[in-house]
Amino acid sequence: MKKVAVIGNGNWGTTVSRLIANNITATQDFDSELLLWVHEEMYQHQKLSEYINALRTNPIYLPGVRLPDNIRAVTSFDEINEADIFVICLPCKFLDTIKEIKPKKGSFAINLSKGLILKDEKLYTPSEYIESILKIECASLCGANIAIEVATEQLSECTVGYTDKDQINCLEWMFDNDYFRPRIIPHDIGIEICAALKNIVSLGFGIIEGMEWGSNTKAMLFRKGLVEMERFCKLMKGKFLVLESCCIGDLLTSCLNGRNFRCGMQMAKDRCKSAEIEKKMGGQKLEGPETVMMINSWLEANNMEIRNFPVFQAIHRICFLGEAPEFLHSVLKKSGE
Amino acid sequence: MKKVAVIGNGNWGTTVSRLIANNITATQDFDSELLLWVHEEMYQHQKLSEYINALRTNPIYLPGVRLPDNIRAVTSFDEINEADIFVICLPCKFLDTIKEIKPKKGSFAINLSKGLILKDEKLYTPSEYIESILKIECASLCGANIAIEVATEQLSECTVGYTDKDQINCLEWMFDNDYFRPRIIPHDIGIEICAALKNIVSLGFGIIEGMEWGSNTKAMLFRKGLVEMERFCKLMKGKFLVLESCCIGDLLTSCLNGRNFRCGMQMAKDRCKSAEIEKKMGGQKLEGPETVMMINSWLEANNMEIRNFPVFQAIHRICFLGEAPEFLHSVLKKSGE
Repeated sequence: MKKVAVIGNGNWGTTVSRLIANNITATQDFDSELLLWVHEEMYQHQKLSEYINALRTNPIYLPGVRLPDNIRAVTSFDEINEADIFVICLPCKFLDTIKEIKPKKGSFAINLSKGLILKDEKLYTPSEYIESILKIECASLCGANIAIEVATEQLSECTVGYTDKDQINCLEWMFDNDYFRPRIIPHDIGIEICAALKNIVSLGFGIIEGMEWGSNTKAMLFRKGLVEMERFCKLMKGKFLVLESCCIGDLLTSCLNGRNFRCGMQMAKDRCKSAEIEKKMGGQKLEGPETVMMINSWLEANNMEIRNFPVFQAIHRICFLGEAPEFLHSVLKKSGE
Repeated sequence: MKKVAVIGNGNWGTTVSRLIANNITATQDFDSELLLWVHEEMYQHQKLSEYINALRTNPIYLPGVRLPDNIRAVTSFDEINEADIFVICLPCKFLDTIKEIKPKKGSFAINLSKGLILKDEKLYTPSEYIESILKIECASLCGANIAIEVATEQLSECTVGYTDKDQINCLEWMFDNDYFRPRIIPHDIGIEICAALKNIVSLGFGIIEGMEWGSNTKAMLFRKGLVEMERFCKLMKGKFLVLESCCIGDLLTSCLNGRNFRCGMQMAKDRCKSAEIEKKMGGQKLEGPETVMMINSWLEANNMEIRNFPVFQAIHRICFLGEAPEFLHSVLKKSGE
């Protein structure tokens, strides 16, 4: 019987806990209790973990959605260490939290975080970073997954990359059901690279929306953004899985609906840097600006040509260096790819 | 000096006439007069061709946009026959009109029509059909090009397929400028197949919008639609040029903004067939339902598996056979690609 622990109680972590907890009750292969590691905070004079366990809802990050009875919120890693499968769903900048986990032999992790990690001049995908910390294999799950839509059981799909064929059966039980359809393929860092880079492109898409440059220009940014995503995948020796949910699907929802899209739109309207919009949006750092900053630093540190990524470069300059949105227009206008 | 004739005075034909007429004045390689073949009709007691020539605007199909002085509207093919380059921009079902053209030696055509033609059980792309009629080579131009945005000089790009390297210089002069950026590549029927099939996918995208099934489901349809577009390109022995404007760019604008998208949305809301929506939209036949009908007939006539195209099949059934929109949902839900 396999024990599942979800690390991270944000809206995606809570949503995925609900999904897995419901799915695994249909088989004897899993311990029916799912552990949800919560970063403790207070809600209405009560500890969030206790609130979740007593009232079966996460009032801060997934209000209004009932959680199944077989989820148990915990705040220490002592019990988490007993898990066979670690589903890791933390913002990239808090991934170091998992250093406290002491995984047992034969366990594996699944990364659900989206972003990249730059450490000691090396650029990691989250699964690479998790493997470097936990010393166990790390699969990944990415895709077009707006959390509230999954939590309310609207039809969705995702891409799951396995690191060992023996995981496939497990991954199907955990994730596959009537409204959530994973496509389970061999793991490749391209899955996570696309999931990270799509946030840069959706920032640009938002800038065009804010500037009212029209649908044709949007299509141009979308296409050129994909070309740069492909180029970056090649640079990192990852596969460019354009027709998977982790790439084209996730890019589309991010451009239609994402927070980075809204950030880009507001940056263009207010003609300001991304930090000012993040402040207005509640102070939380968005993945898009962080990712483009990281990529820019990494390319520079490795003497690589940021010029090969003119769209990413333009978005970096607009987000951080006070460049006007018109700079993106002038970059799109140049011929070439 | 090359003489250009544009055949077709709809909003795209008129827009492209304006674009080319302005571009070719910058070089001596072209006869500065551009001929625009107009399908004559009356506007405010005046012939449309005369109105265009006198008032420098097409009040029916591109109102409010001034046309350059070097466009001359004509209604007979006598003068058109003198052209070196025929830019053909007619709805597919009126393509037979070009039978009246007697092209001179060394001339070539460029197809701008989007759709497919089914004749004597053979499925043609418009350029193939034009070549079969005119017996001259036919290049193509497709892409994310909402006409009014091009007419008002908003930044756009497109895909141009040449059939002979000698055309490249010409095509650059005609189409490339500060706000319209063609990517000129070797001609392949995949360019036109994508331009036709994207209308089917955008019908489906509209159905999901009308049913309010959410962004994740939209991303699923978009991705699965692309997979079927790729499969159909292979079946027709065309290249699947996913990262060109004719494919991903055009699909995106069609899903965001197109008439087929709006038709799909209304079909879902009114729970009716496509013909009823076309009636409400002014009686004009849309390319999406026509294309999916044609593909369905062709696959059946050739004993091929429509089951390999579950999304197209679902959209066909909803458009023509009175199937409920929920059928599309059930098809998306099935596992597989």
